Amino acid sequence: MSIRIGILGYGNLGRGVECAIRQNLDMELVAVFTRRDPKEVKLLTDTAEVLNVSEAEQWKDRIDVLILCGGSATDLPVQTPKYAQWFHVVDSFDTHARIPEHYAAVNEAAKKAGKTAIISVGWDPGMFSLNRMYANAILPEGKDYTFWGKGVSQGHSDAIRRVEGVKDGKQYTIPVETALEAVRNGENPELTTRQKHTRECYVVLEEGADAEKVEQEIKSMPNYFADYDTTVHFISEEELKREHSGIPHGGFVLRSGVTGWEREHRHLIEYRLKLDSNPEFTSSVIVAYARAAYRLAAEGQFGCKTVFDIAPAYLSARSGEELRASML
Amino acid sequence: MSIRIGILGYGNLGRGVECAIRQNLDMELVAVFTRRDPKEVKLLTDTAEVLNVSEAEQWKDRIDVLILCGGSATDLPVQTPKYAQWFHVVDSFDTHARIPEHYAAVNEAAKKAGKTAIISVGWDPGMFSLNRMYANAILPEGKDYTFWGKGVSQGHSDAIRRVEGVKDGKQYTIPVETALEAVRNGENPELTTRQKHTRECYVVLEEGADAEKVEQEIKSMPNYFADYDTTVHFISEEELKREHSGIPHGGFVLRSGVTGWEREHRHLIEYRLKLDSNPEFTSSVIVAYARAAYRLAAEGQFGCKTVFDIAPAYLSARSGEELRASML
Repeated sequence: MSIRIGILGYGNLGRGVECAIRQNLDMELVAVFTRRDPKEVKLLTDTAEVLNVSEAEQWKDRIDVLILCGGSATDLPVQTPKYAQWFHVVDSFDTHARIPEHYAAVNEAAKKAGKTAIISVGWDPGMFSLNRMYANAILPEGKDYTFWGKGVSQGHSDAIRRVEGVKDGKQYTIPVETALEAVRNGENPELTTRQKHTRECYVVLEEGADAEKVEQEIKSMPNYFADYDTTVHFISEEELKREHSGIPHGGFVLRSGVTGWEREHRHLIEYRLKLDSNPEFTSSVIVAYARAAYRLAAEGQFGCKTVFDIAPAYLSARSGEELRASML
Repeated sequence: MSIRIGILGYGNLGRGVECAIRQNLDMELVAVFTRRDPKEVKLLTDTAEVLNVSEAEQWKDRIDVLILCGGSATDLPVQTPKYAQWFHVVDSFDTHARIPEHYAAVNEAAKKAGKTAIISVGWDPGMFSLNRMYANAILPEGKDYTFWGKGVSQGHSDAIRRVEGVKDGKQYTIPVETALEAVRNGENPELTTRQKHTRECYVVLEEGADAEKVEQEIKSMPNYFADYDTTVHFISEEELKREHSGIPHGGFVLRSGVTGWEREHRHLIEYRLKLDSNPEFTSSVIVAYARAAYRLAAEGQFGCKTVFDIAPAYLSARSGEELRASML
């Protein structure tokens, strides 16, 4: 019998989850819940139903794991504790600084209801976090580095589009290759914000807008661009659509550490992701953890979990025996 | 109270474990068991005792986890099941093809005795296995690649030294950069043995030996060198000592996979290790898993485990709360 999955929220992430479910033969998508009029939402999966979010509770016995695909700013802080009263849930809450409070709220709700909830699943937080943690446990004396990109930052692209005179725009975060090489060479550099990443902007101007003024306004924007070396390219709307409609991302987690009685040996652990589609990769991680949620729930392991709390084998469709024989 | 660690076998790996324990403040080395005369073994740690291996059983109540540092060919298949009757144990059994039978033997012994045993810990098997498994669970449709090196292969160095006319020698396994780049570019190449790695040999000849004959014999050696592009450098004993006395190693685990309804997006997951000291890094992984063994044992989770079965948080000295706040 398949693991029956529900999706709440059908944007880029929800569609990514739908695609990932199709690649996992032990799962099936049974329902998508949306705040929109269900009649206006067309799924890729013929066999799943689209329902208004208000109907979710009625599906509590027909769904094994509900995947919450809302945003971290306002959706998930409310949704994850709420739906954990009826479902085993997985979310991708990614506001790092607010994870402890989110964890507490979800843990309380899930424990009370006897449900399993896994939060902050994806690649950062998620696979990057796992790699930071493993590397720190293995090399207790060392230094951590995370580089993001090359990839599209949604927040920075939104910031560009709020500038007067900008019709549309896209921002790429790019790791500085020389900084990355210094880390790989074991130089343990102290890196400022500016030394780690550059920001590249592709901007379509409104008719009659002042390019120089727009460029200055972008480059001097506090928090978003002022602390970085920023490049602004003005392009046509057609070029933006043709060349910059993807959502690639990725990055590097590195730990440089020492071992030996005199700390005489250096080691480098590097984890890298190069992703054509940020939401689809995130979804693929979430779906693997949905399998884990299903299994943990079957064992009665309720409450809130993160990637740190879940044994790797729970993610795989293969048995322990198969894993030991083929991958160990 | 510290976790009290014992070491069985005091070679490169045992000394590496001793060094790693010093970097982990919640652990202490209490005893080293050796097949040699204990009086002839000098530890780095003042506070630990050296004892003959025959005395190990008497220490069963004074050691929380016994780390087995023997070889995989003949030592561990006997030692791990044997010592699991008295101790929670960790080993680095690395004969991939024989892991299932080793697992079965250790599992039976550990379950019977109510002990926790973790086998095949290190980097391959170990961290590389974990990365293969996570990447496969995340990207079910894709292709796996493992490259080793640049690093010293003990087995191949031994093979060189068995050739007539060779006084000493060292062999480096080197990944082929163009093959690695093809994988990173998502080309999903089919790679033969020869296309993945080259072998570089540094050889000191016996006086009067025939260099050309030695080189031919090395290059044509079945299993070890015949399937590879092998380079042989003849050097002096001094140069070998000066330039090639280290035990570096490392390598790359990559998975290239696709997502999307039409499999239209490509992703690359890459894990890389660059290690100055193969045995010390292996030891560092083992020591983190010794902490996990201690905690699993405290929870009554007995029997044989591998890296696949252990939640990452068990490896870290930090609490779940600290981990969520600092690394997620």
